[in-house]
Amino acid sequence: MPKHTFKVEWGDTDAAGIVFYPNYYRWMDNSTHAFFETIGYSSVVLFEEDRMGLPILEANCRFFTPSFFGNRIEVTSEIAEVKDKVFRIEHTFRRGETLLAQGYEVRAWTDFSNGKPKAQPIPDELREKFMHHLKQEIS
Amino acid sequence: MPKHTFKVEWGDTDAAGIVFYPNYYRWMDNSTHAFFETIGYSSVVLFEEDRMGLPILEANCRFFTPSFFGNRIEVTSEIAEVKDKVFRIEHTFRRGETLLAQGYEVRAWTDFSNGKPKAQPIPDELREKFMHHLKQEIS
Amino acid sequence: MPKHTFKVEWGDTDAAGIVFYPNYYRWMDNSTHAFFETIGYSSVVLFEEDRMGLPILEANCRFFTPSFFGNRIEVTSEIAEVKDKVFRIEHTFRRGETLLAQGYEVRAWTDFSNGKPKAQPIPDELREKFMHHLKQEIS
Amino acid sequence: MPKHTFKVEWGDTDAAGIVFYPNYYRWMDNSTHAFFETIGYSSVVLFEEDRMGLPILEANCRFFTPSFFGNRIEVTSEIAEVKDKVFRIEHTFRRGETLLAQGYEVRAWTDFSNGKPKAQPIPDELREKFMHHLKQEIS
Repeated sequence: MPKHTFKVEWGDTDAAGIVFYPNYYRWMDNSTHAFFETIGYSSVVLFEEDRMGLPILEANCRFFTPSFFGNRIEVTSEIAEVKDKVFRIEHTFRRGETLLAQGYEVRAWTDFSNGKPKAQPIPDELREKFMHHLKQEIS
Repeated sequence: MPKHTFKVEWGDTDAAGIVFYPNYYRWMDNSTHAFFETIGYSSVVLFEEDRMGLPILEANCRFFTPSFFGNRIEVTSEIAEVKDKVFRIEHTFRRGETLLAQGYEVRAWTDFSNGKPKAQPIPDELREKFMHHLKQEIS
Repeated sequence: MPKHTFKVEWGDTDAAGIVFYPNYYRWMDNSTHAFFETIGYSSVVLFEEDRMGLPILEANCRFFTPSFFGNRIEVTSEIAEVKDKVFRIEHTFRRGETLLAQGYEVRAWTDFSNGKPKAQPIPDELREKFMHHLKQEIS
Repeated sequence: MPKHTFKVEWGDTDAAGIVFYPNYYRWMDNSTHAFFETIGYSSVVLFEEDRMGLPILEANCRFFTPSFFGNRIEVTSEIAEVKDKVFRIEHTFRRGETLLAQGYEVRAWTDFSNGKPKAQPIPDELREKFMHHLKQEIS
């Protein structure tokens, strides 16, 4: 499962001293781009050479424990669902053993080459890579 | 219904030329603070004088149409649900007649005065004000 | 002198409860775009139709008084210097009578139409408009 | 010389596809906090235990080459000047061999323990650590 770690910066907090929540969505976006790089799809190359992008359809996050300046946060990103043109990626934020937040993004595999962005079927090669990073349901 | 209008700024967009989606959560946060000011609860006064705040438990947004630099966006904020200590506020983003995005935040009425933040029952006075801004279900 | 007013939002502050300083540069950027709109140059139109932009060469700000969540801030923007391809715009931030910060940006009138951005002589029409918003030196 | 490396994220760019310049000030702020951690002063500990902070008096940055999504940027931070209560820290941004930007921050060693923040003489121990990271002038 692709993971990466980052540190809460000074400007990420608000006047209550805890992380300003929209930053979690910025971190989810970062994590999705990192996930794609891990599986061999650089979003720079995708967008600049192929004019393919991953616009957001929905994003959700539930917040369990506040985080603070200086915290080291680990994000785990997993594919939770794959449809024809759309997939759902889930991000879990932990500080050590503590679950901080859990969110997901629904994104569409999208062609930007013709003015108006248009969702496309997810190619088999990408679909196969997704399969290696599917969320493990606890049975 | 409390509404306010703002403009998409240059830095709100990303390399694809459309609004970077985490900004919508920043705008939802702004709109909630504006909503509270409208009903007579300034979050500055609340936090500084009473040590009461509104930490987030969950936030969700669905995105229907991309928005761009220079767009004038109107947000409507309505109370969608009120429980004992927790409420859900819904934000609808429109550019003219076009529905751009619709989201909600679940927040807890929280006492910050004793180190560890602790959710409290929503006071009757606030609960009553919420009633005047309840989301109108279409029947 | 073009002025505009905005409010410090919750997420603009940091854990010390004061505005996170990089936001002032975001506000300077916003103010420059607003200034151009005031004098009849919409940066959207400029960039999308003419592929002209205003990339930054230098930005500076001095901070005199901290600002806080909920503060209403007025920015005044004036042209402080105009060279062949480059101009300097100065932004003054006030809360009521209190001077909060004063900064400037040096920007180049730049053609983005040919891959590599290239600075161009400022057209006479724009130069003339600048003249109406020149900073008044106190003599 | 304390250095650290980071990656330009998707949301750091603007509609022209280049980094939105205020992010450089965010990165300078991050780098100053990282610098202090390197020399044994955690800004979390400083602020929470000693109520000491480093508010900004001035920040400046000159931009030489645009940077883009996915770029890996290295920042070098050096102390450029130390006065009684105030110091200047300089940050140099490079992508490989290419100089992207160079900036500085002037900050005051400040006591936040008594309501109104008050600048204090920089303690000898900190002053000595600064000496090990002084900017090397080329003679």
